[in-house]
Amino acid sequence: MAQRIGIIDLGSNTTRMVIYDYERDSYFRLEDEIREVVRLREGMGRTNVLRAAAIQRAVNAMRMFKELGDDLGVSEVIVAATSAVRDAINRDSFLARIKAETGWTLRLLSGEEEGRYGALGAINATCLRDGFVIDLGGGSAQIVEVREGIPGRAVSLPLGALRLTELFLSPDKISPEQVAALQKFIGEQLQPLDWFRFQPGDQLVAIGGAIRNLGKIDQVRKRYPLSSIHGYRLDAAAISGMADRLWRDSLKKRRRVNGLRADRADIIPAAAIAYRALLQHSGFDEITISRPGLREGLFFEHYLSHLPQPIIPDLRRFSVLNLARIFGRDDAHSHHVAFLALRMFDDLRPVHGLDERYRELLWAAGILHDIGAIINYPYHHQHSYYIILNYTLYGYSPRELAIIALIARYHRNKGVPKARELAPLLDETDTQALVVLCGVIRLAEYLERGRRQIVRDLRCHADVENGWVQIETLTTGPAAIELWEAERNLDVLSMALKMEVELVQGVWIETETKRPDAA
Amino acid sequence: MAQRIGIIDLGSNTTRMVIYDYERDSYFRLEDEIREVVRLREGMGRTNVLRAAAIQRAVNAMRMFKELGDDLGVSEVIVAATSAVRDAINRDSFLARIKAETGWTLRLLSGEEEGRYGALGAINATCLRDGFVIDLGGGSAQIVEVREGIPGRAVSLPLGALRLTELFLSPDKISPEQVAALQKFIGEQLQPLDWFRFQPGDQLVAIGGAIRNLGKIDQVRKRYPLSSIHGYRLDAAAISGMADRLWRDSLKKRRRVNGLRADRADIIPAAAIAYRALLQHSGFDEITISRPGLREGLFFEHYLSHLPQPIIPDLRRFSVLNLARIFGRDDAHSHHVAFLALRMFDDLRPVHGLDERYRELLWAAGILHDIGAIINYPYHHQHSYYIILNYTLYGYSPRELAIIALIARYHRNKGVPKARELAPLLDETDTQALVVLCGVIRLAEYLERGRRQIVRDLRCHADVENGWVQIETLTTGPAAIELWEAERNLDVLSMALKMEVELVQGVWIETETKRPDAA
Repeated sequence: MAQRIGIIDLGSNTTRMVIYDYERDSYFRLEDEIREVVRLREGMGRTNVLRAAAIQRAVNAMRMFKELGDDLGVSEVIVAATSAVRDAINRDSFLARIKAETGWTLRLLSGEEEGRYGALGAINATCLRDGFVIDLGGGSAQIVEVREGIPGRAVSLPLGALRLTELFLSPDKISPEQVAALQKFIGEQLQPLDWFRFQPGDQLVAIGGAIRNLGKIDQVRKRYPLSSIHGYRLDAAAISGMADRLWRDSLKKRRRVNGLRADRADIIPAAAIAYRALLQHSGFDEITISRPGLREGLFFEHYLSHLPQPIIPDLRRFSVLNLARIFGRDDAHSHHVAFLALRMFDDLRPVHGLDERYRELLWAAGILHDIGAIINYPYHHQHSYYIILNYTLYGYSPRELAIIALIARYHRNKGVPKARELAPLLDETDTQALVVLCGVIRLAEYLERGRRQIVRDLRCHADVENGWVQIETLTTGPAAIELWEAERNLDVLSMALKMEVELVQGVWIETETKRPDAA
Repeated sequence: MAQRIGIIDLGSNTTRMVIYDYERDSYFRLEDEIREVVRLREGMGRTNVLRAAAIQRAVNAMRMFKELGDDLGVSEVIVAATSAVRDAINRDSFLARIKAETGWTLRLLSGEEEGRYGALGAINATCLRDGFVIDLGGGSAQIVEVREGIPGRAVSLPLGALRLTELFLSPDKISPEQVAALQKFIGEQLQPLDWFRFQPGDQLVAIGGAIRNLGKIDQVRKRYPLSSIHGYRLDAAAISGMADRLWRDSLKKRRRVNGLRADRADIIPAAAIAYRALLQHSGFDEITISRPGLREGLFFEHYLSHLPQPIIPDLRRFSVLNLARIFGRDDAHSHHVAFLALRMFDDLRPVHGLDERYRELLWAAGILHDIGAIINYPYHHQHSYYIILNYTLYGYSPRELAIIALIARYHRNKGVPKARELAPLLDETDTQALVVLCGVIRLAEYLERGRRQIVRDLRCHADVENGWVQIETLTTGPAAIELWEAERNLDVLSMALKMEVELVQGVWIETETKRPDAA
């Protein structure tokens, strides 16, 4: 049965509640989200006293969140507080006040715990295996080492953007001396971290509002074709440019920077400068942004409490099936289209010579090809494309998402696959592979036209020398419509392989052959 | 319980099966669609004998459709044949052959019946009250008069595009003499129709592949912002231009016309010339295209068999609720947002002075504002916009659809409503109205933030002279989150009305007041 849970983190700058619906071992889905800028750290300075106005804002927000959670019928709420409360000398009275007002016992996270939950969120959304996760928030910044997909060593540093801004920078016009002092402070904080260094194969993932805003600014500048920030890669040069540029503008001018949320305009120079320093120290040349972070880490710990580690075992596969389930398409037809497509991909490997990585994307597109049908049937391939690009499919890079979406886009109807607005995300190899993959999925779809797995399996035979491929369908019953439709949709595969493609009807005989699958 | 039905029409050029899922008094939804160009009339010429190759193509198509219907588990199939079969002297043997191959008894429609079903499809998709429906197919063209939403007088003329092409035009290069002969023939056919004349208030709706293709060509030329053809209006000048232009091109050149399906390139000159003559004869200055036609008319007769006339009683309302049901959003929250929005609209009528027509669009947007949440929550307003524009909502013009989609698009988040790519569909009044409507729906949404109808009702009080409006919420319980969220979302309404807007919490007392609604 579906459960509903609320997760709140009370940060130094922002507090946010997310509400998830989930069934264990089936799916989860974000049902609602609410955000409030409480600036809990505001005015704390070096005294470490939570100020009256800030406390009131936080209490109000928690009361609202409590009411919303009750209204929406959440059965459980997890509330976590981070650095502002952690550092405050009056934190006990604050926690007691929240408890009195809402009944909630806040979990006060240590810096290491905060880092670990952020890393859990990021790992479960990006397939990060080895490297580091940075969570630069309002009060603190956590750096967590990840090895073999498990978060390990973690540190929390006083490098939150709001704190750095309060300590070093004027609210409006910032001077070069202030920047120099800020950089000196950051350098001193990072200097002892000799383990935070790039090793070959490592990835650096960052979470939090600051990096998302830096990413958005970069996306707007580069006319990036997707609206999602998740998985976006920011290179060192872009970050360095923003670190150089943003502090020179007045607050008013910063508020008008394209892509930047106006309520982040004050803290963004400090964030950019801190990120530049983090890259310089560690030697990474790019950052991958993860939208999920601390809250999602808390959610995953709960959702996956039956596992030894709260890490989704096969993230990319799970993401695809999760999305299919939300749209009611984790069904025999979708799986069979994926199966027939993979069979063709495998049998034709000597002909197309495509990398194994494309095989997995083909599988994902096979499972998801029909999710757009809920919007309307005649253009459902286009709607599947839209949904795949707009739902945040964890574990895939934007480039991979684009390929999955395009395969789904071209699973039916006439026409040669074209990347169009997604072309900037693809390289030459991808563009060529796309035609093969679309040719394959189109045949798989039409061979499963009646959605009853009548073409139970198939075999491909290729004569490379003489330039022809035969697809032998193994059917369990009348498959006239499948063969008829497939027959007139051989063109894309034929064009992609530059070979003649012929179709033959065979009969399926039960054997021990294992079905290919993405697993 | 959901039923599944297949509807086939076997036309002179094309045959198509649509498969609908439906529950009577609840919803219907297109589940599948398959189309085949059988050119049943090909080679019939003046002998009126269905030719062997054409018969074989039709039999093959029916067998395929039968198999697909069986595969997809349709419980009932309606198969209708139109002019090619009607006119054929060997029709009995053809019908017997289909019966033997598929078990189906084809309904051979008379020209008047064909016209009536086409009109039923169009009326149930366009809100046509008075005027005419033209269905120009491959073999014949039906003209049906509609009065008070009911199809009446009907005629079937031998003006199908395939027939006209075969009788008068060369397949490739067409001569002016051929065009003149064609025009003379059409003129003679129309001349007796003295009842097919424009009267003030009349609308002309056209259905069928030919007009859809003419519409597509015009959409591409005019860079029309929507992808849907339904509801598109083609003016006399555009049709006249195509009638003048298309026949002058070779077949090869016509195949490359943007927007035109290549398999219609041969018959499109005759279709354009016929439509020009139909407009000239009747005196209409534009045609509205309906996507639904004959097949949908047959479906509606079945779906609405419990009504005295197979006409959806309140089409626009039904369409909206049908879409909401498909997305699981025909729920208390959606209806309450619509209700609160209408209450504001009504109470503030002296202030905004908007036309009643906007009220209905506001209601529709209220019901549909959350349908995009299935794709992902954070941008669900944008996804609702996408779905509203891409699902074909019967009974609304493209302009009205654009307004509904834009209101839904701006029901949350910051930012002033902007029509952007839809601007060409709106006039000045719409653009101004949009800001008011978005201001209203945003408040309605936030006053229903907890989705529990805590703000049961509201009243607006306006002091036009002193420039302020008060919104008095009538609550049944704690509504702190609603008031808090609404309080910071007063800006759009305030800007739209150019008045200060204040919010007051009142208490709801049970009264006899009728709830406003779209009905």
